[in-house]
Amino acid sequence: MTNNDEYMTVVIKEKPQKGLKVSKKVIPQSIGKDEVLVKVLATSVCGTDFHVYNWDEWSQNRIKPPITMGHEFAGRVIKVGENVNRIKLNDIVSAETHIVCDECEFCRSGKGHICQNTKIIGVDTDGSFAEYVKIPAKNCLINDPDVDPRFLAIQEPLGNAVHTILHFDVIGKTVAIVGCGPIGLLAVNVAKAVGAGKIIAIEINEYRRNLAKELGADVVINPLKEDVVGRVLEETNNIGIDVVGEFSGNKMAIEQAFKYVKLGGKMSFLGIPNGKVEIDLTNDVVFKGITMYGVTGRIMYETWHQVKGLIKHLDLDKVITHTLKLEEVDKAMEIMASGNSGKIALIP
Amino acid sequence: MTNNDEYMTVVIKEKPQKGLKVSKKVIPQSIGKDEVLVKVLATSVCGTDFHVYNWDEWSQNRIKPPITMGHEFAGRVIKVGENVNRIKLNDIVSAETHIVCDECEFCRSGKGHICQNTKIIGVDTDGSFAEYVKIPAKNCLINDPDVDPRFLAIQEPLGNAVHTILHFDVIGKTVAIVGCGPIGLLAVNVAKAVGAGKIIAIEINEYRRNLAKELGADVVINPLKEDVVGRVLEETNNIGIDVVGEFSGNKMAIEQAFKYVKLGGKMSFLGIPNGKVEIDLTNDVVFKGITMYGVTGRIMYETWHQVKGLIKHLDLDKVITHTLKLEEVDKAMEIMASGNSGKIALIP
Amino acid sequence: MTNNDEYMTVVIKEKPQKGLKVSKKVIPQSIGKDEVLVKVLATSVCGTDFHVYNWDEWSQNRIKPPITMGHEFAGRVIKVGENVNRIKLNDIVSAETHIVCDECEFCRSGKGHICQNTKIIGVDTDGSFAEYVKIPAKNCLINDPDVDPRFLAIQEPLGNAVHTILHFDVIGKTVAIVGCGPIGLLAVNVAKAVGAGKIIAIEINEYRRNLAKELGADVVINPLKEDVVGRVLEETNNIGIDVVGEFSGNKMAIEQAFKYVKLGGKMSFLGIPNGKVEIDLTNDVVFKGITMYGVTGRIMYETWHQVKGLIKHLDLDKVITHTLKLEEVDKAMEIMASGNSGKIALIP
Amino acid sequence: MTNNDEYMTVVIKEKPQKGLKVSKKVIPQSIGKDEVLVKVLATSVCGTDFHVYNWDEWSQNRIKPPITMGHEFAGRVIKVGENVNRIKLNDIVSAETHIVCDECEFCRSGKGHICQNTKIIGVDTDGSFAEYVKIPAKNCLINDPDVDPRFLAIQEPLGNAVHTILHFDVIGKTVAIVGCGPIGLLAVNVAKAVGAGKIIAIEINEYRRNLAKELGADVVINPLKEDVVGRVLEETNNIGIDVVGEFSGNKMAIEQAFKYVKLGGKMSFLGIPNGKVEIDLTNDVVFKGITMYGVTGRIMYETWHQVKGLIKHLDLDKVITHTLKLEEVDKAMEIMASGNSGKIALIP
Repeated sequence: MTNNDEYMTVVIKEKPQKGLKVSKKVIPQSIGKDEVLVKVLATSVCGTDFHVYNWDEWSQNRIKPPITMGHEFAGRVIKVGENVNRIKLNDIVSAETHIVCDECEFCRSGKGHICQNTKIIGVDTDGSFAEYVKIPAKNCLINDPDVDPRFLAIQEPLGNAVHTILHFDVIGKTVAIVGCGPIGLLAVNVAKAVGAGKIIAIEINEYRRNLAKELGADVVINPLKEDVVGRVLEETNNIGIDVVGEFSGNKMAIEQAFKYVKLGGKMSFLGIPNGKVEIDLTNDVVFKGITMYGVTGRIMYETWHQVKGLIKHLDLDKVITHTLKLEEVDKAMEIMASGNSGKIALIP
Repeated sequence: MTNNDEYMTVVIKEKPQKGLKVSKKVIPQSIGKDEVLVKVLATSVCGTDFHVYNWDEWSQNRIKPPITMGHEFAGRVIKVGENVNRIKLNDIVSAETHIVCDECEFCRSGKGHICQNTKIIGVDTDGSFAEYVKIPAKNCLINDPDVDPRFLAIQEPLGNAVHTILHFDVIGKTVAIVGCGPIGLLAVNVAKAVGAGKIIAIEINEYRRNLAKELGADVVINPLKEDVVGRVLEETNNIGIDVVGEFSGNKMAIEQAFKYVKLGGKMSFLGIPNGKVEIDLTNDVVFKGITMYGVTGRIMYETWHQVKGLIKHLDLDKVITHTLKLEEVDKAMEIMASGNSGKIALIP
Repeated sequence: MTNNDEYMTVVIKEKPQKGLKVSKKVIPQSIGKDEVLVKVLATSVCGTDFHVYNWDEWSQNRIKPPITMGHEFAGRVIKVGENVNRIKLNDIVSAETHIVCDECEFCRSGKGHICQNTKIIGVDTDGSFAEYVKIPAKNCLINDPDVDPRFLAIQEPLGNAVHTILHFDVIGKTVAIVGCGPIGLLAVNVAKAVGAGKIIAIEINEYRRNLAKELGADVVINPLKEDVVGRVLEETNNIGIDVVGEFSGNKMAIEQAFKYVKLGGKMSFLGIPNGKVEIDLTNDVVFKGITMYGVTGRIMYETWHQVKGLIKHLDLDKVITHTLKLEEVDKAMEIMASGNSGKIALIP
Repeated sequence: MTNNDEYMTVVIKEKPQKGLKVSKKVIPQSIGKDEVLVKVLATSVCGTDFHVYNWDEWSQNRIKPPITMGHEFAGRVIKVGENVNRIKLNDIVSAETHIVCDECEFCRSGKGHICQNTKIIGVDTDGSFAEYVKIPAKNCLINDPDVDPRFLAIQEPLGNAVHTILHFDVIGKTVAIVGCGPIGLLAVNVAKAVGAGKIIAIEINEYRRNLAKELGADVVINPLKEDVVGRVLEETNNIGIDVVGEFSGNKMAIEQAFKYVKLGGKMSFLGIPNGKVEIDLTNDVVFKGITMYGVTGRIMYETWHQVKGLIKHLDLDKVITHTLKLEEVDKAMEIMASGNSGKIALIP
């Protein structure tokens, strides 16, 4: 790298208050033996970034400014630590954003996604809203270099959607997607790509309902206008839904889901409600004989392999509704706030 | 049968009020083409019978007196319907108590335990607190005739325990049994018989805690005296429990279980709380990555096959703490009320 | 029915020799209490029918002429036995062709597909190469009446393909389809519909290789011209195939499959070789840590539910390459013999 | 360590010929950053050691003398590499003997047991037939220090038995253990400890048949004297065996197993036959609908967790039939050759 390259544009959380700042930082010069340095080709905005932008309660407890934001990205490897063999110079990589300990019981039995000592890129370490990002080599996934880097960047949230939807068998089944934010939208598309029998998407925002339909939803329901439980039962011969993917974190939506899930049905929970949810264990869980699963992150790295195999079956060009320059991060946050978007990509 | 056999002793719910009545009924003379008539050798008391005895709210809504109570039993087949091939005269049988429709989607895909049109012996039809009981042949399980009929009688609740405990893998794992009523006690014994790593039983009644210990619990906890969450974590190197079997239906006990279940842990729910339970989905389900399963009945008839294979590994003589005459049913109910019992067998 | 309807056209195996005969039979007038009479709208030709036509060794041992052939069909219910509730007059039904006993251990634990006492429609009882066919009501699956009856007819072999391909997880995985006869072709299409990562079809017949490509194969290999193992490894970064679906019954093809299946890979076997196959258990099974599964029929009725949910995602119009009149059955057999076909439908 | 400790007793394969040599080597002084040095408290003899002793064909191709033999062991950690956190000085550890790459697709998806780049302790690196052994810290499992070190040493082969037997569900099922060498004997004991319904052990050696019976086999069969298939069917109501664990590698025994495995049955293969085995795929795999699994090593580290939880339920004192001094390794090999042994422990 020449002297001209010494500084890079980054988006940082500078102070403990609302907002993000476009700034300059020195490009990392030294990398650890087990690390790589990646030139970011595309990064994308996660709900987490939006929480940090808004400096909500969670952010205040977790984030220690100043820190470079962002964790969904794809880029080209331009430096490789001395112990690194698997990753080569110029590989186009994405990254699992959970940096796990490899030593706890969970890491040592194929369950790194629930590692007790996880650090998260862009939350606990400097992230990818930057021209360059330094990450552990082990977190890298090598991509097909011919795929649009924006599609590669959103593999991380796509992994959440895949983990949620494919935890239970949905092939030929009825599937409800509750909440069509960006990950819910990806989930609709995944359910479609794997041959779900009928996909019912439930979402209050019209823009997102329309997008859900384009991405494969057979039925879309506006819970502000329709009796959700009644409509879902009507669409399923009064027998209810085989598999529910919960992405909303909305208590009322969750309560409804327990009512329209089928006897013996399955529910995956990714959305995170504020506070406790009242559940009728007796009638909705025990007597119904259902199974519920809490989704954290992506199975390492099985989910990533699924994502890699599925990506060509998906309509990621439709999921990414906006592509902006990294410097336009404020505009991205405004669009997020409006709810009228799928994924938003940023190009450094 | 001779004329002397025409009447039999039965225990009936005669009127819509507390209590049961020892009475006489005509022995069923005609049986359907697909039915069998069984001479009851032993029957046992279920919590459901106790609810009906007490005429609680559930009973008032469900039971239509007069009806012969009881559904856990074993007996000898003395009459066989004309279409019946599988069951032979003199077979020693027990019965699945769910009479299912064989026509709904659930029955037609190996999930009869959640059949939409289930009738229950001794709840919707005349039951086994009697010298003779008439049941569908398909519900019969053929037993080893050398086993104590009391052990054969309690295979039905044992099936609940097996379904609950074996739904998730417990071999070599830590297991918490929450609530040591008769089914919880059976669950302790099952967990022991299949090689659980450490069994922690949680129960307020001293008699039952002692019995749990005899049946294989490595640790017993009195939630009235100890900090349950703290103690369980202490017993599990602060990592928590692999598999929770919930038999209590107690809200506080359930809330505690969500706190001590391990990351990635599993919870089976058989106990039925009154009213809703508040669950911290975000922290206790999503971030923990756990799986929850609601248990209804017994898998038909896979659970019964497991029970049959396991029975010789169990200490059912210890589980059955009292054996009375059928006519002593009131005494049985008093013992149930005291909490100082395991299973109670009745001999007609 | 009027007097004019008393006779119907049927295709029978009349004598123990090669060939089939177009003939007339009386339309079944009396049906059992648990049976239905179906007016056949479309039927299709199975490899089994072709074996019987050719009167090969298997047929000679199994078939007892005279018998009406055929078992893949869809039709309208025109008579309903007195005990039948689930099926209604005018329902458009297809049929599971295995008539199982409901009494053996397998039937009684959700594994009717391996019932010890199975009878097969069109093999052990009069079949569907006829204007009308009488079958047990329990074997009926109710269809969407708006779907092309030819598509509904081939749900039975489609069920074989679905059972074979979906037994192991293929979403996002590499899949080899070995042998692209009609069921192999359906398997290619199913693998595509559920989002397989890469589908490699292996088939000697050019017509079928081309069809496999149209139905979703990413790579087609002619084993007569190419080094199959080398080519598959090349197409999979030298790591091998995740899931093999074996439809050929060809020993050399099977041996090759053991060489290109991945470490930890999965193999489903539907094809039935003549005689034994030599397997290198040590190197190809134990050291590779693979799993193998033998496929019989369709899971009852789980596979049928999957088929119903998947059917709209499939290109069954391409799979059915020929549609003939029932009377043209000889022509159908000639086309089968040529190998230049997918499924062949017959219309009574 | 003092000067007196500089040399240690070891058992080495010195030259490419039959035999082993008791010798002296310098105690490893320097250990890698990620390694630990372990004082061996007990080690045990594997079939592999016996192959190397005999210098059979496999050994000639794999082993490069001189090398210290042995890989099953337990010991006290006396030195810890600078990067090591999980393992502490004085921990009592056993070791997974597969040193895997952590970088291949298999390692990166929880399948390290089939890592493409595995090295094996005592085969590819100096082993545990020694007073001290140097191993990667990540391979260490921390033990309960109160357990007999000989029991801890045999956890590695016990892991093979556990992996083989618990891959399929055996609780309450009929299980055949084919071949009762040391791992087969451990498998009998594991099947017993997890509540198998009936355990049938097949073994030619009388000593081992007797031991199998002591360890929990309900039936033992001498294939030299009895019709194995007939006897197994007789013992299983003519329905056959649910789960077969194959430990013999004997072709005739394997062929028999395919005949007595039940419809829908399961087979795990750990034994490694010389050359190919002829399998009737059509009748014994496809039409029977069975599942077969090839067992390599131990699932890392899930199997080890199962072993740890199960160990107190096992009769390892009976499995270990001989305990010798390390220097008596020749005597150990003679006992192995006689077949009249379970596991043989060596104490340095």
